[in-house]
Amino acid sequence: MSAPSPTETERSARGVLLVSCLDQPGIVAAVSSLVYGGGGNIVDLQQHTDPVDGAFFQRVEFELDQFRFDRVELAEQLKPLIARFDMRCQVRFTDEVPRVAILVSREAHCLQDLLARWRLGELPADIRLVISNHPDHAELVSSFDVAYEHHPVTPQTRADQERVISTSLADADVDMVVLARYMQILSPGFVAPWEGRIINIHHSFLPAFQGARPYHQAHGRGVKLIGVTAHYVTADLDEGPIIDQDVTRVSHRDDVEALRRRGRDLEVIVLARAVRAHLEHRVLIHGNRTIVFDG
Amino acid sequence: MSAPSPTETERSARGVLLVSCLDQPGIVAAVSSLVYGGGGNIVDLQQHTDPVDGAFFQRVEFELDQFRFDRVELAEQLKPLIARFDMRCQVRFTDEVPRVAILVSREAHCLQDLLARWRLGELPADIRLVISNHPDHAELVSSFDVAYEHHPVTPQTRADQERVISTSLADADVDMVVLARYMQILSPGFVAPWEGRIINIHHSFLPAFQGARPYHQAHGRGVKLIGVTAHYVTADLDEGPIIDQDVTRVSHRDDVEALRRRGRDLEVIVLARAVRAHLEHRVLIHGNRTIVFDG
Amino acid sequence: MSAPSPTETERSARGVLLVSCLDQPGIVAAVSSLVYGGGGNIVDLQQHTDPVDGAFFQRVEFELDQFRFDRVELAEQLKPLIARFDMRCQVRFTDEVPRVAILVSREAHCLQDLLARWRLGELPADIRLVISNHPDHAELVSSFDVAYEHHPVTPQTRADQERVISTSLADADVDMVVLARYMQILSPGFVAPWEGRIINIHHSFLPAFQGARPYHQAHGRGVKLIGVTAHYVTADLDEGPIIDQDVTRVSHRDDVEALRRRGRDLEVIVLARAVRAHLEHRVLIHGNRTIVFDG
Amino acid sequence: MSAPSPTETERSARGVLLVSCLDQPGIVAAVSSLVYGGGGNIVDLQQHTDPVDGAFFQRVEFELDQFRFDRVELAEQLKPLIARFDMRCQVRFTDEVPRVAILVSREAHCLQDLLARWRLGELPADIRLVISNHPDHAELVSSFDVAYEHHPVTPQTRADQERVISTSLADADVDMVVLARYMQILSPGFVAPWEGRIINIHHSFLPAFQGARPYHQAHGRGVKLIGVTAHYVTADLDEGPIIDQDVTRVSHRDDVEALRRRGRDLEVIVLARAVRAHLEHRVLIHGNRTIVFDG
Repeated sequence: MSAPSPTETERSARGVLLVSCLDQPGIVAAVSSLVYGGGGNIVDLQQHTDPVDGAFFQRVEFELDQFRFDRVELAEQLKPLIARFDMRCQVRFTDEVPRVAILVSREAHCLQDLLARWRLGELPADIRLVISNHPDHAELVSSFDVAYEHHPVTPQTRADQERVISTSLADADVDMVVLARYMQILSPGFVAPWEGRIINIHHSFLPAFQGARPYHQAHGRGVKLIGVTAHYVTADLDEGPIIDQDVTRVSHRDDVEALRRRGRDLEVIVLARAVRAHLEHRVLIHGNRTIVFDG
Repeated sequence: MSAPSPTETERSARGVLLVSCLDQPGIVAAVSSLVYGGGGNIVDLQQHTDPVDGAFFQRVEFELDQFRFDRVELAEQLKPLIARFDMRCQVRFTDEVPRVAILVSREAHCLQDLLARWRLGELPADIRLVISNHPDHAELVSSFDVAYEHHPVTPQTRADQERVISTSLADADVDMVVLARYMQILSPGFVAPWEGRIINIHHSFLPAFQGARPYHQAHGRGVKLIGVTAHYVTADLDEGPIIDQDVTRVSHRDDVEALRRRGRDLEVIVLARAVRAHLEHRVLIHGNRTIVFDG
Repeated sequence: MSAPSPTETERSARGVLLVSCLDQPGIVAAVSSLVYGGGGNIVDLQQHTDPVDGAFFQRVEFELDQFRFDRVELAEQLKPLIARFDMRCQVRFTDEVPRVAILVSREAHCLQDLLARWRLGELPADIRLVISNHPDHAELVSSFDVAYEHHPVTPQTRADQERVISTSLADADVDMVVLARYMQILSPGFVAPWEGRIINIHHSFLPAFQGARPYHQAHGRGVKLIGVTAHYVTADLDEGPIIDQDVTRVSHRDDVEALRRRGRDLEVIVLARAVRAHLEHRVLIHGNRTIVFDG
Repeated sequence: MSAPSPTETERSARGVLLVSCLDQPGIVAAVSSLVYGGGGNIVDLQQHTDPVDGAFFQRVEFELDQFRFDRVELAEQLKPLIARFDMRCQVRFTDEVPRVAILVSREAHCLQDLLARWRLGELPADIRLVISNHPDHAELVSSFDVAYEHHPVTPQTRADQERVISTSLADADVDMVVLARYMQILSPGFVAPWEGRIINIHHSFLPAFQGARPYHQAHGRGVKLIGVTAHYVTADLDEGPIIDQDVTRVSHRDDVEALRRRGRDLEVIVLARAVRAHLEHRVLIHGNRTIVFDG
């Protein structure tokens, strides 16, 4: 975590608790009483109970202005609740801005969009690093004062290239990775340490058209809508938990090139929404599904 | 309130608290502690704080199975909180099903849709009565075992007709009125006692195209989308708090008749969504705006 | 074909030519000159050329008021063009209204919607017959003055039941079959004679979630949109040419029952749009894809 | 007109005829026969007849490869048809790329998007010039090798500033002007010579929320969708012919800042769609409405 982006609008810092456990009476009362007891004013509380397996999820956002507990003390205060409800609890603070790396291949529309939103203050992130297997985006990225690394890859050098990237991510102390149209398949070994912190944009409405060339597949099947999917990356290609999806109408008039053009607008928007939700600590993963609280 | 509709799916009854007051620390903790103290399990909690005027809104839904307070006792328990936070608090129980009257003119698509959804169990309502200024819908309505009253109206008899309708609504002990394409303008005197409990569907994307013949207006202006709006009725025509809206794409190919046809599908869906939100106690009115909690 | 539905609005009859062949210069000029030569005024002309295989498709709609050729003569006039361009040409007249049969199982929402639209004059059809493997819809269907046949089916009696249905369709001289949530899998032998004239609504965004219980599949995968697909039925289950699709947003709050409820609204609208497009002679099949001209 | 943008994909040049006149038999046959007579292959033909006033509109796109008429000869050939049908006919060639100027104020998202699409080859334009009343975008614009002029304005200097801009547009021999969030009101005298060639993006769903600060107006009214409108600019503010519109869902959670953020995504996409339609010669103006042929 690091200092906020320069354009981040002024607003007092907030704490966010992300809680999950088995549903049982008293959780809401206990958590909200703890926050209130510390002098925190809850500005947003959302919860969800899965009716199938009885899992309980909660997000509590509260102002830190009058909050008496520092971060260590808050952790201490949470311990009895964590024990009582056997719950997992992530604690986040909005003045600790996640450090982000973006991986990209040849097509730059998602990269450019994320950088532009970041400059506008839409993304509470510290974009530290852009890595590509192509040299093309050096000038664009440096115009945003972000580091750019070019790590080419061939089928033979994949393992080496992944090792180099992993080192770069570690050196930059990155909290989150965004695959902004990075067209190389990442090995399970690369992905594992980033579980729940690496987001990809796939250019189809998953689970339809997994794998390569989804716009060609969509054209071949004659669908009347095309879609895109932002999801967490797991070891299983295109099978990770879905964060967001959207579609747009197409017709027999649209060839593959037109699908690609229409799809680009979707890719940009859906990836940005998913990344923003993650950065705002609004996403919880539950098996292969996500709870995305409203922003 | 009365017994649930025959198709209502079996589920244990729930209590719903709808709270509004000025934002201040401790509300969530106090309300959730009260519910927990009574043995209630909160299954859904949503809140909203208006950043402009600092108004606080909360909806708490909890299971009644293990709840120890009866309705009188719950009211008693809430009194200190109401005093402490100077809050308004509506208390609802899902086994007390609102009694509903539908007013309709010549076009029956919204009426038919509401009745069909009700039969499918989508609407937690007791539809008691359909009133029309046309005789046409008697057979349709009676096939759903609902009473039908035909009260014709002319410009000269408006006041009398409204009096007759008011009496019918009172006799049927109705909790809520739905204007399902009722094309007569209701007087402020008629509307006043139903404030916050009478919903209209207007066939435009308000505030565009208020008043008469909105599809003609839309065609004349050459818009590329048409919309509809479900809103609470107030003394000011088409100015009441908006509950839901939606649009659909149109083109130069669509004449007024085509707009009407495309619009019907929207009217049906948006009115049903708004009525359902109201019946599920998910809507709070705040000045001329609404907070609609997720369903 | 038979007389128009009673509510069909008055408009002078029109001819429709649906042409397909290999793209080559002169087709538009030749066809439009033929219509003009007969005194017909073209009110709508749409064409499409597939850039991949060079297939050409055209729909020409023209007023018959001043048209000098009767139906036999028009066929005669078209013969040289058909030979010259090696083209297929369907000839339709809007005063010959297709006879339609609807097959339905237990859920009646699509059936009811189609009947209601038909009564409103939205569907240029002669709905002759509703067939179901359940007895439930007799009263509903007869209230629209349409014949209702109940043909129950078990895994053992499938072939017999299909034979009975085939006979009923033949006896009623049906032009088109609509599967309005008919939940039995039809054998290739049953489907074959109806190729290009039998439309199904599948409750998923095909090709995602083919087969049984798509809402369960969608919930299991954690998608953020659910969809439906109207398509021509072929021997391959859920693989036929897609006519129309649509989606709606869902969230982690929606259980399977909620997906079903949200999906019903989509099913109704998308099936109606597809059936309407077919009845208005706006659909051409090209391999496993469709050209759907604007309505 | 000038040479195509460097990224324009290779495709043989095409001619486009945009025809409007009173509806009468024989137009389609006459125009298509003329094209065929010159050896042109029609690749797209769309027409529209307004049922209210009987106006006829047609767009014919044909390949120029085998076309025997040069541009002068084509004009000559069209003369008898223009006389016969009393029609207006615009003739366009896709290898003559319109020269475009973009006007912008402080917010750069639409400007940046148009430039990025142009570089990707999505816009068949020659972007010659960007003019702003703010100095901020010089670096961005020059990174696309486009000229940038900064012409500040105050209420006192408006007339002078408009004169300077008019001269710049004339000097650059511009065919079309795009107001990409240019927040100054242009005088009727400035607009007049650009009638039908100057497109604005207004950040509301017109005709709702005309004038200043539409997102504030939308928030105040409590709408559940916000929209944007791309339209030709006329002397009447926000009253010109609408080319495209779109909306996105909002809720009580969204303050004005959130509406602005959500709106930006719409503004970018709808303006780009409208500009693209204009550049592809797919828009005809009919009174205060547009016919936008499919792209």
